[in-house]
Amino acid sequence: MSTIDLAQTVMERIEALARISEEPDRLTRTFGSPAMRQANDLVATWMREAGMTVSEDAIGNVIGRYPGREESGKTFLLGSHLDTVRDAGKYDGPLGVIAAIACVQQLHQSQTLLPFAIEVIGFADEEGVRYQTTYLGSKVLTGRFNEQDLKRFDSRGISMADAIRTFGGNPDKLKEGRRDPQQLLGYTEIHIEQGPVLEKKYQPVGVVTAISGQMRVRARFTGQAGHAGTTPMGLRRDALVAAAHFITAVEVSTNDFPGLIATVGQIEALPGASNVIPGEVILTVDIRHHVDATRTSACARLNEVAHRTAEKRGIALDWEIVHEAQSVPCSHELTALLSKAAKRHLVEVTELASGAGHDAAMLGEITPMAMLFVRCEGGISHNPAEAVMTDDVRVAIAVMGDYLLLLGNQLNPLSGKKHA
Amino acid sequence: MSTIDLAQTVMERIEALARISEEPDRLTRTFGSPAMRQANDLVATWMREAGMTVSEDAIGNVIGRYPGREESGKTFLLGSHLDTVRDAGKYDGPLGVIAAIACVQQLHQSQTLLPFAIEVIGFADEEGVRYQTTYLGSKVLTGRFNEQDLKRFDSRGISMADAIRTFGGNPDKLKEGRRDPQQLLGYTEIHIEQGPVLEKKYQPVGVVTAISGQMRVRARFTGQAGHAGTTPMGLRRDALVAAAHFITAVEVSTNDFPGLIATVGQIEALPGASNVIPGEVILTVDIRHHVDATRTSACARLNEVAHRTAEKRGIALDWEIVHEAQSVPCSHELTALLSKAAKRHLVEVTELASGAGHDAAMLGEITPMAMLFVRCEGGISHNPAEAVMTDDVRVAIAVMGDYLLLLGNQLNPLSGKKHA
Repeated sequence: MSTIDLAQTVMERIEALARISEEPDRLTRTFGSPAMRQANDLVATWMREAGMTVSEDAIGNVIGRYPGREESGKTFLLGSHLDTVRDAGKYDGPLGVIAAIACVQQLHQSQTLLPFAIEVIGFADEEGVRYQTTYLGSKVLTGRFNEQDLKRFDSRGISMADAIRTFGGNPDKLKEGRRDPQQLLGYTEIHIEQGPVLEKKYQPVGVVTAISGQMRVRARFTGQAGHAGTTPMGLRRDALVAAAHFITAVEVSTNDFPGLIATVGQIEALPGASNVIPGEVILTVDIRHHVDATRTSACARLNEVAHRTAEKRGIALDWEIVHEAQSVPCSHELTALLSKAAKRHLVEVTELASGAGHDAAMLGEITPMAMLFVRCEGGISHNPAEAVMTDDVRVAIAVMGDYLLLLGNQLNPLSGKKHA
Repeated sequence: MSTIDLAQTVMERIEALARISEEPDRLTRTFGSPAMRQANDLVATWMREAGMTVSEDAIGNVIGRYPGREESGKTFLLGSHLDTVRDAGKYDGPLGVIAAIACVQQLHQSQTLLPFAIEVIGFADEEGVRYQTTYLGSKVLTGRFNEQDLKRFDSRGISMADAIRTFGGNPDKLKEGRRDPQQLLGYTEIHIEQGPVLEKKYQPVGVVTAISGQMRVRARFTGQAGHAGTTPMGLRRDALVAAAHFITAVEVSTNDFPGLIATVGQIEALPGASNVIPGEVILTVDIRHHVDATRTSACARLNEVAHRTAEKRGIALDWEIVHEAQSVPCSHELTALLSKAAKRHLVEVTELASGAGHDAAMLGEITPMAMLFVRCEGGISHNPAEAVMTDDVRVAIAVMGDYLLLLGNQLNPLSGKKHA
């Protein structure tokens, strides 16, 4: 098959996967669900077609292994996740798994063995929809899985341990899924961009430089509720007006920190009646940057702005950082190689930071990591409107295929040493 | 009893009424409830003590009548409502009924008859909590009751018609409760201010000039939802940032319309996740002024500001006026008389518009109307923290008592003609 045919196959397989859902009229496929069972089984058949032996680890990650030239060689990991959000698009996750299988299929059909084995992993959970905790699949590989999470319950009262058992996994053997970093060569993930940068630049794919660090702040503005009809403007302590000034300042402040993105995504004004002055507003601020120091400076600045805005209006402010994740840089070596592969197909290679988290961020904890983004229409994701062009998938497969060859080529003379 | 003792009695009776609730640990007394039954019965005993004959009309308004000097005389109405919001304060409503009874008691104990009869009315519903439609009591007196409302259901599935029957009223005879404007001299209501103006001016009471007109706008800003981590700031159409600019502009624009009050009380940002750029924001704007023309100009200005703000950001705006009520001016004659009575007790008399609606606004449709506001702590109402000072109630009773005498005095020489 040519890469065009491979891309076409990838698109058909993504359509087939998208029909496997736990809800009748929309795509929802959560961790440990019967739909995931069906998805894993289908993906396993494609892996076998591509010359891989298939296994499932204790948490339910489906893993296809394509052997290396030497038994003693290291393993290079490819993959992404097979679970989805509720009412999901088709590409977020599955594209990375299915495209990786296509790359292996290309090796298999040309009977090419590389100096390393390849494993393609379909992670059992990245979105965290069912148990409100993300990266369950990749955490098992890195040894970051928190056993306490097994006692979490889903909305129907099923514990995670039971869900794993029902799925066919084994909650008592999760530790065995941990990979020895010494045996790994690296991890590379294909994923839709989930943003509009590549589209704006007319680029089918882009090479990721880092997964941005992130913090989520919960800010509470406390003023004084009052009757909207009887409290003169000059006598108010309106928490929503203060919050509104802050929200406009959030946007403005990003001008001073190139690359910073900051979003107020949730807002609640209490008591929330049209005829009552809001006495309290709670909002979230999501702050991301690929340089951690820039992100923390920006957060400090926003905190200062919020305090100043609140104080001027006699409003109390409570500012709490509820989540923080460090930036995860991609491996320089792998990223350089991925760019080199991309340059074989593109005049110009776009490098960009990933503002979203990915399994790659977790894998980056134990092995060199790289990512290839694929353009998606309007930058839309987590939505049935997610769309990817077949020709972009073709480019992604071509780049990833060359990347694997370049990697093999680079390792070849050194294989004796490297694999020791 | 002196006015001090009367005020003390009023405060005790308000406490007694506050213990009559349909909820164990807070004050909630809605239309037609067993608590309202008990409240009406208790109020009726106080009316009788004050020399009144008591009746209940078909909707359940409790009415005490104190006769005038002549059988043929007109009737002057006093009153307020006995129902409350959920988790209410004690004074909003009951103060006006109980203080009016105290004024009649003062006439009764001095065996004074005026050239007109007085009726004190405890309205059965002003807040509209149970059937989401306000002024049920006063609407019956003015003939504005909408018979369709009888088919409304409360949250437990009880129709309004059945609720009226259970209470002891008669849904088929509501029309009989309509008062002939020719037989009425006017209506005057004592009510807590529900705002902070009198407190700021150190005034125990104030004379109301008008009940402000009001409009409620529902504005919807529609931008583009997107991933908060992957959409660069320059490529966003964030509906919340646009809405925030508008909210700050609402406050600023009130500077150009003296006396205008405008409030954004409700806001919802969708989809409402911390990591998603809000694609849609729906908010309410409550706009009030005692001059209707000023209110409509201000609304037009805000509409223009909202459109300009939205347009600049590529955001669509939907602007809908969902509620509009005209300003109801108080009677010049009655208000002048009420001010004259107030000047007997105060160095300076504060006149102010009422930003909140009252039964008086409904009664104003059929008869001259006036209102006396009583200072309340912090301007707080619709809240258990509502508080009124006994001495302010004393002043209110003294002013209202003198007002009735002044009214009788003014009518006396003309009574033959006026009552013809």
